[in-house]
Amino acid sequence: MKRPTIADIASRAGVSKVAVSYALNGQPGVSAATRARIVAIAEEIGWQPNSAARALNGARAHTVGLALCRPARFLGVEPFFMELISGIEGVLADRSYALMLQVVTDHEQEIEVYRRWWGERRTDGAFLVDLRYSDARVPAMERLGMPVVVIGHPDASGSLPAVWSDDGEAIRETIAYLIALGHRRIARVAGLSKLVHTAVRDQAFAESCAGAAEHVTVHTDYTGEEGARATRRLLSSADRPTAIVYDNDIMAVAGLSVAQEMRLDVPRDLSIVAWDDSPLSQVVRPPLTALTRDIPAYGGHAAQRLLALIEGEAVPAFEDQAARLTPRGSTGAVLVDTR
Amino acid sequence: MKRPTIADIASRAGVSKVAVSYALNGQPGVSAATRARIVAIAEEIGWQPNSAARALNGARAHTVGLALCRPARFLGVEPFFMELISGIEGVLADRSYALMLQVVTDHEQEIEVYRRWWGERRTDGAFLVDLRYSDARVPAMERLGMPVVVIGHPDASGSLPAVWSDDGEAIRETIAYLIALGHRRIARVAGLSKLVHTAVRDQAFAESCAGAAEHVTVHTDYTGEEGARATRRLLSSADRPTAIVYDNDIMAVAGLSVAQEMRLDVPRDLSIVAWDDSPLSQVVRPPLTALTRDIPAYGGHAAQRLLALIEGEAVPAFEDQAARLTPRGSTGAVLVDTR
Repeated sequence: MKRPTIADIASRAGVSKVAVSYALNGQPGVSAATRARIVAIAEEIGWQPNSAARALNGARAHTVGLALCRPARFLGVEPFFMELISGIEGVLADRSYALMLQVVTDHEQEIEVYRRWWGERRTDGAFLVDLRYSDARVPAMERLGMPVVVIGHPDASGSLPAVWSDDGEAIRETIAYLIALGHRRIARVAGLSKLVHTAVRDQAFAESCAGAAEHVTVHTDYTGEEGARATRRLLSSADRPTAIVYDNDIMAVAGLSVAQEMRLDVPRDLSIVAWDDSPLSQVVRPPLTALTRDIPAYGGHAAQRLLALIEGEAVPAFEDQAARLTPRGSTGAVLVDTR
Repeated sequence: MKRPTIADIASRAGVSKVAVSYALNGQPGVSAATRARIVAIAEEIGWQPNSAARALNGARAHTVGLALCRPARFLGVEPFFMELISGIEGVLADRSYALMLQVVTDHEQEIEVYRRWWGERRTDGAFLVDLRYSDARVPAMERLGMPVVVIGHPDASGSLPAVWSDDGEAIRETIAYLIALGHRRIARVAGLSKLVHTAVRDQAFAESCAGAAEHVTVHTDYTGEEGARATRRLLSSADRPTAIVYDNDIMAVAGLSVAQEMRLDVPRDLSIVAWDDSPLSQVVRPPLTALTRDIPAYGGHAAQRLLALIEGEAVPAFEDQAARLTPRGSTGAVLVDTR
């Protein structure tokens, strides 16, 4: 299982390693006939210039990195990341770039991985996702000097270009709609509280409800299990909400099951909104009202900007379309209590 | 955006590049004090040994490759690949290995990508998926000498170790169950006919039905659209099937929608079986009877074997558990026609 080396070519051709090196690098010092013979032998035994030679030439790795600080099983469960990666891959494939993917346990390891990939010329650039406030990765990437695009809010991306969408706008549209339908007690089953986009949603939710509806936010880890537990707790309280907005589709589908298990009719007794939209939210009955956005396109926009950054272009922050409310069967007007 | 080099360290330390090289490689020729100063400067400016140095030392890339010859958008749609990748990542993350992912348009490009990654020491090994009969990638990988694990049937994997499961057994269990429920006209909406695992299923399906039930197989590209079209055509025929087995969950869910749109009751008028099982098949109403297997574990088993192969261990073919039938609400007994 040894890769063929220049020494192998030299011994087959009966010439020195230096002569092989001259021949393969197009330098003078060997005859045309010898050069042709050496090139033919190199092809025959499957020799490839190794990364040592490439790095010395300043060649690109044609690879960008994505470290994910989430449990590996999340990749197979939550459609968001796979749709994002599919959009990134779509743009990379057109340019014959690869995506280097590694699951890490914390930001320290993530920074270490990016430092190694960049230092060893394994990647030409990378993405940062799941941004937090005062995120240690941002100054670390600024110091490293590697081209990095943040998929997240520009407020926390430092000098790194951000590709983002306005989650506040999507929340405001949703809450205005629920209030117009008569909802006065609205809950939100949210994701990880440390993430910037969760905080943006938290604030917009509280502001949109203020003065118009009672509101409560419960933070979870995005799993169906925690989404179901939070829903059960909310629906068991004396003044249960008449509408719940979920921070992902997995929790919204789990919440719908809990409502059905507790003999509540959706949407008569409870309205449900999912964020993001996905095949999951469309195949349940009733189909879920959802906040819809084109996630593959979002990933594609980030990849285009990272490739531009690698080419040395100036890349400003890019605001993608905000998610839009797609009303389906899971939301309805609140019945007036005539007792 | 320049990576710090040995020349940068040399100029800061006021020594020669050779002295820096000696110091960082632990060779004699510099004083302990100078060595300490050089190491401190290297750390401060974020210098990393580049892949040139590492390759010359024969160091591993700590990366394995996966080229996917499917449209990029598939990654975000079909749960199978993401669950497989999540299982692979779970094992790789424990060993601090990365996964290099690239979407390719054909096998020729896939072989070219693997040759480049291996020749340039970007990967220590790779996976082959979606195996075909007389698959050009198998002899190409054998010639290349890169450690490769095939996720697919050992009949077509040549000398490369295969991690596989017996799709024939799963089909036989399913058809025996449907025949016991009284089904005598059974259809199968299958995946790409060129794939080995499709052919294995085709043959087991025909053999299991032979003499006991009329049977027909329609090949598709795995998309919901083609699954819906195939279902519509099957259900519009004079002697429509009373049961349909689908080769993935996306098509089964699409098929359920078509049955509902054609006012057929599932399972009274039509039984539906999905392969693989996924969150999608469990959240629809009725929930789908499905062929269930632990896909992340399957990916994990393949990753363990690839890492063992990279360590130089002998790796025999590994037969994983076959998918098992999980009966749910979408299958039922055929009503006897008493007209």
